Amino acid sequence: MGQQAGVFGASGFAGGELVRLLDGHPQLELVHLGAHRQEGERLGAVHPQLGGAERRFGSVASEAAPPLDVAFLALPHGSSARLGSELAQTGTAVVDLGSDFRFDTPARYRAAYGDGHPLSEELASWAYGLPELYPLGGSRRVAVPGCYPTAALLAAAPLLRAGLIEPDGIVIDALSGVSGAGRSLREDLLFTAVDQGVLGYGVGSHRHRPEIEMGLEMAAGGVEARVTFTPHLVPMQRGLLATVTARPAGSLDRARLLAALEEAYEGCPFVQVTDRPPQTRWVVGSNRALVTAFADLHAGTVVAMGAIDNLGKGAAGQAVQCANLVLGFEETAGLLQTGWMP
Amino acid sequence: MGQQAGVFGASGFAGGELVRLLDGHPQLELVHLGAHRQEGERLGAVHPQLGGAERRFGSVASEAAPPLDVAFLALPHGSSARLGSELAQTGTAVVDLGSDFRFDTPARYRAAYGDGHPLSEELASWAYGLPELYPLGGSRRVAVPGCYPTAALLAAAPLLRAGLIEPDGIVIDALSGVSGAGRSLREDLLFTAVDQGVLGYGVGSHRHRPEIEMGLEMAAGGVEARVTFTPHLVPMQRGLLATVTARPAGSLDRARLLAALEEAYEGCPFVQVTDRPPQTRWVVGSNRALVTAFADLHAGTVVAMGAIDNLGKGAAGQAVQCANLVLGFEETAGLLQTGWMP
Amino acid sequence: MGQQAGVFGASGFAGGELVRLLDGHPQLELVHLGAHRQEGERLGAVHPQLGGAERRFGSVASEAAPPLDVAFLALPHGSSARLGSELAQTGTAVVDLGSDFRFDTPARYRAAYGDGHPLSEELASWAYGLPELYPLGGSRRVAVPGCYPTAALLAAAPLLRAGLIEPDGIVIDALSGVSGAGRSLREDLLFTAVDQGVLGYGVGSHRHRPEIEMGLEMAAGGVEARVTFTPHLVPMQRGLLATVTARPAGSLDRARLLAALEEAYEGCPFVQVTDRPPQTRWVVGSNRALVTAFADLHAGTVVAMGAIDNLGKGAAGQAVQCANLVLGFEETAGLLQTGWMP
Amino acid sequence: MGQQAGVFGASGFAGGELVRLLDGHPQLELVHLGAHRQEGERLGAVHPQLGGAERRFGSVASEAAPPLDVAFLALPHGSSARLGSELAQTGTAVVDLGSDFRFDTPARYRAAYGDGHPLSEELASWAYGLPELYPLGGSRRVAVPGCYPTAALLAAAPLLRAGLIEPDGIVIDALSGVSGAGRSLREDLLFTAVDQGVLGYGVGSHRHRPEIEMGLEMAAGGVEARVTFTPHLVPMQRGLLATVTARPAGSLDRARLLAALEEAYEGCPFVQVTDRPPQTRWVVGSNRALVTAFADLHAGTVVAMGAIDNLGKGAAGQAVQCANLVLGFEETAGLLQTGWMP
Repeated sequence: MGQQAGVFGASGFAGGELVRLLDGHPQLELVHLGAHRQEGERLGAVHPQLGGAERRFGSVASEAAPPLDVAFLALPHGSSARLGSELAQTGTAVVDLGSDFRFDTPARYRAAYGDGHPLSEELASWAYGLPELYPLGGSRRVAVPGCYPTAALLAAAPLLRAGLIEPDGIVIDALSGVSGAGRSLREDLLFTAVDQGVLGYGVGSHRHRPEIEMGLEMAAGGVEARVTFTPHLVPMQRGLLATVTARPAGSLDRARLLAALEEAYEGCPFVQVTDRPPQTRWVVGSNRALVTAFADLHAGTVVAMGAIDNLGKGAAGQAVQCANLVLGFEETAGLLQTGWMP
Repeated sequence: MGQQAGVFGASGFAGGELVRLLDGHPQLELVHLGAHRQEGERLGAVHPQLGGAERRFGSVASEAAPPLDVAFLALPHGSSARLGSELAQTGTAVVDLGSDFRFDTPARYRAAYGDGHPLSEELASWAYGLPELYPLGGSRRVAVPGCYPTAALLAAAPLLRAGLIEPDGIVIDALSGVSGAGRSLREDLLFTAVDQGVLGYGVGSHRHRPEIEMGLEMAAGGVEARVTFTPHLVPMQRGLLATVTARPAGSLDRARLLAALEEAYEGCPFVQVTDRPPQTRWVVGSNRALVTAFADLHAGTVVAMGAIDNLGKGAAGQAVQCANLVLGFEETAGLLQTGWMP
Repeated sequence: MGQQAGVFGASGFAGGELVRLLDGHPQLELVHLGAHRQEGERLGAVHPQLGGAERRFGSVASEAAPPLDVAFLALPHGSSARLGSELAQTGTAVVDLGSDFRFDTPARYRAAYGDGHPLSEELASWAYGLPELYPLGGSRRVAVPGCYPTAALLAAAPLLRAGLIEPDGIVIDALSGVSGAGRSLREDLLFTAVDQGVLGYGVGSHRHRPEIEMGLEMAAGGVEARVTFTPHLVPMQRGLLATVTARPAGSLDRARLLAALEEAYEGCPFVQVTDRPPQTRWVVGSNRALVTAFADLHAGTVVAMGAIDNLGKGAAGQAVQCANLVLGFEETAGLLQTGWMP
Repeated sequence: MGQQAGVFGASGFAGGELVRLLDGHPQLELVHLGAHRQEGERLGAVHPQLGGAERRFGSVASEAAPPLDVAFLALPHGSSARLGSELAQTGTAVVDLGSDFRFDTPARYRAAYGDGHPLSEELASWAYGLPELYPLGGSRRVAVPGCYPTAALLAAAPLLRAGLIEPDGIVIDALSGVSGAGRSLREDLLFTAVDQGVLGYGVGSHRHRPEIEMGLEMAAGGVEARVTFTPHLVPMQRGLLATVTARPAGSLDRARLLAALEEAYEGCPFVQVTDRPPQTRWVVGSNRALVTAFADLHAGTVVAMGAIDNLGKGAAGQAVQCANLVLGFEETAGLLQTGWMP
């Protein structure tokens, strides 16, 4: 049998995707499905697409779960700090898909979320789980990035690190499928409100902006990044594209941009550098990310793009990838490098 | 009966939309439907959504049409220069939805299209048909802007004209529904290739970029605009959103941005300034445009947005609006200020 | 100015579509927008696609409205009986889009809704508002059919009336866009729950089944119809297709089927008989209906089809059409015979 | 290493899905990708969603392939007869996703396809590959059913076999996602022609009708089935729902219907009997099928439903399932019982 895994917050979209991945994982056995409001319900009632429909959700309390080698937390903002800390203290490896432990300092946390961190002394012990860009460093506590930061950083961070773009004046317009908004029962997420339309939202105020800036600064070291970030909602289920426009540092040459990306992702099984613009369709259903960069010689700018599945590399897939690394498995165990379209 | 109108290129999407609008126009009577490859076919075979299905397409040659008070040209690039010129010489008011006469100078035309203009001496006699921003000046020859320039300019031009943004370093990411790509039989436009995915395309090379820069320069006067323009294709039928990020000129204050937009569009029946981010759903099916602007105080940037129906205000609707102005009708005759969603 | 119209229940999808149509109606002036929960709110907050955003919703109480020549009721089931009766007693023409007055007898009402009709003595004074099939008979009280019955009856009733199909053993599978389910905040109507999937529902128990049977019996006279009705939800905003399979009465010949349809709809501006299978795309946005019938010689069955816009001919459009007839206007006043696709 | 597998016709949708499945199959190694028009091209140019993009398509000629333990044919109608026969004679197990070998007799083939079978003497040696209903009987030549027959037969055949429905007068209305129409470059398959609309097609003439009748007759033995079959195209990528209405044989009781389905699929890993109406979303991306049946006591009919992924259980998944059985692997090897929504 494999090592024992649990999912806390298994009733949401990221939670369901975790169940799907862990059910197929060759070295992990999913032994606990925690859900807050759905405790006691059948899995099949909430996730009819999943097998093992007769399994039931249990508690999201740490003491309710059986002993776990690894715990995945897919809980609302603010709900995973205490639980993650408790689980980690028992020796369980913890991969948190939420935002509680993503920031490196209390100040950044406050800037993004407006209030103090409940366990600020623990922030430093969590790794930021985007392993192609940031080594996990042996930590058994991993905070998986948000979906927008994952796509944006995969496209932009290597260029900044290589000194090919300037760290300020970066413009990121990103397009996300509707599952990125989660499973909330909101009028603006009804089919009749979303289909056949697009909009930008959260201009200048989205909480992923500070996270993107932190990621850029971590990647380049010693720089201060300044980003205008505008997310957009588009009528599709899954998929996320980040289009990053930046001023070049030094001469502008597409070959150098692509070379920097190729070098950054050499040996990375999930990130591919493409020549043509990446489409989200090509990665949806997988843990794959596609990145590219263009040189706009007329405008004198760099345009980089990153495409992911917001629930795959942008959430559950990346979480499993991090768990694989923490537990010493093959990085690709249980993960797909192939999408399902059409 | 009304004055006589003809559509040349009535078999495409913009052509069909023109037929729909002209069939309902109180002062125009549609008496000629020209189509190149479909000459002789029934209208209903090509546009089953339209009434009057038994009407047949005729020729796209100028001499084949009955005398026309106004001609609308919705032909492929390069096909309307000669025809537009011939029709105009007979006294017919000509509204061209194509790109042949959009540029003010041969140099700009060459920059965008790479070859010489076939009738460059006539360029100066055509008005650029975005009447909220540029007066038609009594011209009876109007070149209607492209869909991307319409949305981008409606959002950005008043801010530049009011001295609130800098003319260079402008980043425009735009999202278009699939009808914007026209009716071509292309593999990448199949439902199975488009649905559930997004992509950016034409980075740094889209022909609407020079047109946007021209529009900004015309609006502000004496400036040289420099734009990074990245269009994106999103899985919806109609609708276009332009998100414009620019550096502020002077202090950054949302109220001033909104006031400049309000002032620019005062008395304009089709353009509304919104407080919340505009959705394309709210304008699809109409000639309406929604614009807004935000101040991103953290990044120190302006984020302006414009939402239109790419076939409405971005093509056929705007063409009819221009014809109304040229012919002395009410500006709103035959046009809707209300969308059809859901 | 025109005669005065009011909409009670203006905040739902059918209500919004009524506002859209009445705002463009040449002989009616919309002077009252009643809404229950949204009383006091701006129209634009609920229907951002509509013009006149600053208008506010008023009460749904009959005494709160100004004097009305015609009232449209688009209220939940059970909410229009009392209001409709009150308004009708003041001389106002009443067009009810709800189900309260659709049935001809209390028994049928009870069969469909399981409880007694609150005003059963008034049922006989209401006309069933599908004027191509059933004359309104001078009534100023009209109950507009449901969307499924409209499509199914338009396809099947003329065939039954002409003695070409048997009244029992009829199978109706119908496909509806999501707006047909209304604007309720339900988990199963979220974009992420509806997009990319289809399902049948309400098998054997949908309340439109008794209504369809009533309509067939009214059309043919003296027959007892028996229908298996299975509605299906498909991922599109609008549009409804009914596919009706029936046993032929007498010989089976497509020409006779089409001739019966042609004869039934001769002179009807909104219903067209097609040779090829009708698509909902061709009618969406309009009050048009397309019908056809096939002879399946192998199986020995008739397959008839009817396509409508569920919010157009299936709700608001048909309501305005009925009002036009009641008030003595042109039947087509304010209504489109042209759809808006793509 | 595993046994060696080849795909002939790897460039279409079913072919791509086969590659996706075989790349993840624990006991098969995909060593040949044949494609007719794309011979020599990179896999990634045609199927950007798949891994191993640098692999190239080879020939579809049998002699061009390396020695194969199993060959999957996903070729156009009429293209697999000769190839399948040749490959089978070399001892290769052959699984044909096409229609050439689906029929049990030349007469049925002629009824469906209108011309003589090129290798009619071989028809009897091919098994019909829907293993939950028809044992493969040790054959190493398997003709996988069409997508519509798979869904319809899974829902209806057990009921007919159990004597619960009559074999004539069966009405099947089925709804398919657009990938079911294949990858052809057709105007009616453009996004702008398919999105936001539904239609029925092929009324009384679809070639899957004779196949469904054959399957019903094979299942029940000695009966003659008569089916009215109307397929519908709905705007989604994948998924197929068959709604089957039939007259009951004997008393009508939902419990007996469900019991017959449960009994038929006991021990079948991929088919589940559901209480509520099955949704295609719940199976898309997997080899799963969901079936149910209702008793419509008012109409006196049985309404059965079957939901599959048209490219999964309706094509590539079922082909791999059949290969697993032929080659003596676990029936579920390389196949998912879990969908990927949302």
